[in-house]
Amino acid sequence: MDSNRILKIGLFGFGCVGQGLYDILQRQPNFPAQIVKICVKDPLKERSLPADRFTFDAQELLNDDSLDILVEAISDAHDAYDIVTLALRQGKRVVTANKKMVAHHLEKLLQLQAEYGGVLLYEAAVAGGIPIVRTVEEYFGQEPVSRISGILNGSSNYILSQIFKEQKPYSEALQEAQDKGFAELDPWLDVSGADSRHKLCILAAHAFGRVLAPEEVPFIGINALAKADWEFAKRRGAVIKLVASLHTTEEGKLVPLVLPTLVNSIDDLYTVEQEFNGIVVEGAYAGAQLFKGRGAGGHPTGAAVLSDITGLLKGYQYHYQKLHEQAGVAELDTDFELEVYVRTENAALLGALSLTHIKLLQRQGETINLVGTIKLGALLKYQERLRETGSLVMATSVHFATQEKKIASPELAEAI
Amino acid sequence: MDSNRILKIGLFGFGCVGQGLYDILQRQPNFPAQIVKICVKDPLKERSLPADRFTFDAQELLNDDSLDILVEAISDAHDAYDIVTLALRQGKRVVTANKKMVAHHLEKLLQLQAEYGGVLLYEAAVAGGIPIVRTVEEYFGQEPVSRISGILNGSSNYILSQIFKEQKPYSEALQEAQDKGFAELDPWLDVSGADSRHKLCILAAHAFGRVLAPEEVPFIGINALAKADWEFAKRRGAVIKLVASLHTTEEGKLVPLVLPTLVNSIDDLYTVEQEFNGIVVEGAYAGAQLFKGRGAGGHPTGAAVLSDITGLLKGYQYHYQKLHEQAGVAELDTDFELEVYVRTENAALLGALSLTHIKLLQRQGETINLVGTIKLGALLKYQERLRETGSLVMATSVHFATQEKKIASPELAEAI
Repeated sequence: MDSNRILKIGLFGFGCVGQGLYDILQRQPNFPAQIVKICVKDPLKERSLPADRFTFDAQELLNDDSLDILVEAISDAHDAYDIVTLALRQGKRVVTANKKMVAHHLEKLLQLQAEYGGVLLYEAAVAGGIPIVRTVEEYFGQEPVSRISGILNGSSNYILSQIFKEQKPYSEALQEAQDKGFAELDPWLDVSGADSRHKLCILAAHAFGRVLAPEEVPFIGINALAKADWEFAKRRGAVIKLVASLHTTEEGKLVPLVLPTLVNSIDDLYTVEQEFNGIVVEGAYAGAQLFKGRGAGGHPTGAAVLSDITGLLKGYQYHYQKLHEQAGVAELDTDFELEVYVRTENAALLGALSLTHIKLLQRQGETINLVGTIKLGALLKYQERLRETGSLVMATSVHFATQEKKIASPELAEAI
Repeated sequence: MDSNRILKIGLFGFGCVGQGLYDILQRQPNFPAQIVKICVKDPLKERSLPADRFTFDAQELLNDDSLDILVEAISDAHDAYDIVTLALRQGKRVVTANKKMVAHHLEKLLQLQAEYGGVLLYEAAVAGGIPIVRTVEEYFGQEPVSRISGILNGSSNYILSQIFKEQKPYSEALQEAQDKGFAELDPWLDVSGADSRHKLCILAAHAFGRVLAPEEVPFIGINALAKADWEFAKRRGAVIKLVASLHTTEEGKLVPLVLPTLVNSIDDLYTVEQEFNGIVVEGAYAGAQLFKGRGAGGHPTGAAVLSDITGLLKGYQYHYQKLHEQAGVAELDTDFELEVYVRTENAALLGALSLTHIKLLQRQGETINLVGTIKLGALLKYQERLRETGSLVMATSVHFATQEKKIASPELAEAI
């Protein structure tokens, strides 16, 4: 610790994460840092603390030189970016929980730290209470990582568990996730896979030494799932999970994906249920490791913020070793092929996807189901149209291997 | 990193861990530290490197001021203690993989670091490739931990999986574990639970702020298991795992245990099979987290040593915050009661155990089986006699809760 005095924390936001942190610090009276100012946006919202604990002026915190650490825990990514960059320009030590902001602006955030000497940590931005950012940064900092596959969004995982285990309809399960506080303010972020994509981008920087832009990651959400897809999964003896993954090919290129995925009982992610998160990290030497824990909620996320504050007190910062040594992967392998299940009513789109190795082709009314092989590039190119047309692309395995490549398959055009 | 020059590592031991580290560093030519001297004990043993790479004189490494980091990876705990303490007395930076040595001498090792300014790290000493020491130290450094339950010995876990899944006899499974290199040189350490006990003591210092002596932890091994015990487990729909656990009671006292334990499919440790290790850490705020990975083998353990070397290069050291703040637990709760299954041929010993809440009492020939409640103190007192008499005490749940306390049970004396 820097000294014996109690360090002063300025907190932005008093939602789930902010209140979680506040409550934790209340229970840790000997912790050498305490929240002295809280900035919130809405003066009219009812708060669990007296009104005089709050300010509505961000500048009041940003201009207060007596504050040692700023914690940004608001949900709006634009406002978060403004607050964090203004703080970093003053060389401040900052903790953020905003994954969308970090994922979209990592390059800039790194540059500001280098230029002004500030420090930014963001353990709470990925997988809530699981210390995955620090572990990937520190433990796997020297070790080549071949694969990360994770269930990184607690809300969508909860919904999938409720649909599969409790046979609940999607809308009811979504409402429950919101009622229980697992969901983002904008639930589209959860169920579309966009939130998982943000987290994947953050992990890419630490594990693979690559600043990955969200736009480079194709994502399909669980909001695209229909009853037929669940039946397909059941016939395969699998469950459906929303899996975010990064892996390197033999040529050292990177493959990022966020897709509903068939997960079998022998896969580590199979055991990650309800609102839990789980991440498999496969290192060249350590082998595959599973990290599983609570990915959402005030206390787990607050605990992650607390660990960052503790890190700052000890002078800790991320070194981004793989990034700085340019040892990381640079290119995406847009030619990478993976086996997927596709369901769509749009035959034209299906043709555009350039699927190969087609099997299990079925047509019911307007709906076409098939299993085939797709290239990463095609997924990137057509993901928006897949979303627009309510189509689904689902990986048939967490291992993203193209299985049974040699099965003779009819030409797609002919088959339809 | 300290500078641009390549730091020099002196390595003691060239067994599984030493060779694993050597091999990893060979594959990482850009790593800023390399092994320049290797000290081994046996001049006659065949080595995978030319003879001129080795010395047989530990002093040659200990007295070489050009070495920046010493890595101790020998199996003999006494020799390891001599090497590490001599190095720490010179204020050196040291990495060890020797769990027995650390568990037995932690107090002394801390004192030497404080006195001479050296640094000792030991990630590889607990759960091989899983970064659990650093995670508990850093992430849970501020957070009260209520429970750790782990499968901390890969060899015994492999044996249990082979017995249960492949129906192999114990001796054959043990031989296989040795052939595959999962076992310690002295396999008794694995199967008796002694090795798990050492690892538990190390975790206690970081997670609970308590220097726990191995003698304070009762341990029963898998070498005590018999066919009847497996049948009992099957009737309960459970598997048997060797679980090492620490938890705090409501009064804040500590309960350490290493016992064969019934594990159900809903428990996180159920999924930890074969030579894998798994640890559940339950924090007050983060909730329960599972860390699962390879607990043994040259590369996973070498990866853990590598992460410590990287840590030393960055100036990292353990802070033992809970220990120094005396925020940790001091006392063991010897009155803590847990439900156990007991099998013995020794009725007198059974009486001495002062079991209560007896159920399921059976007698077949000389052998008595029962389920009852035992105090931690009784386990500590009679564990040696349990081992001597080939008796088994097995926890009926990973949660170590005394279940169904209110069932009327016959007095033990009367029942036998």
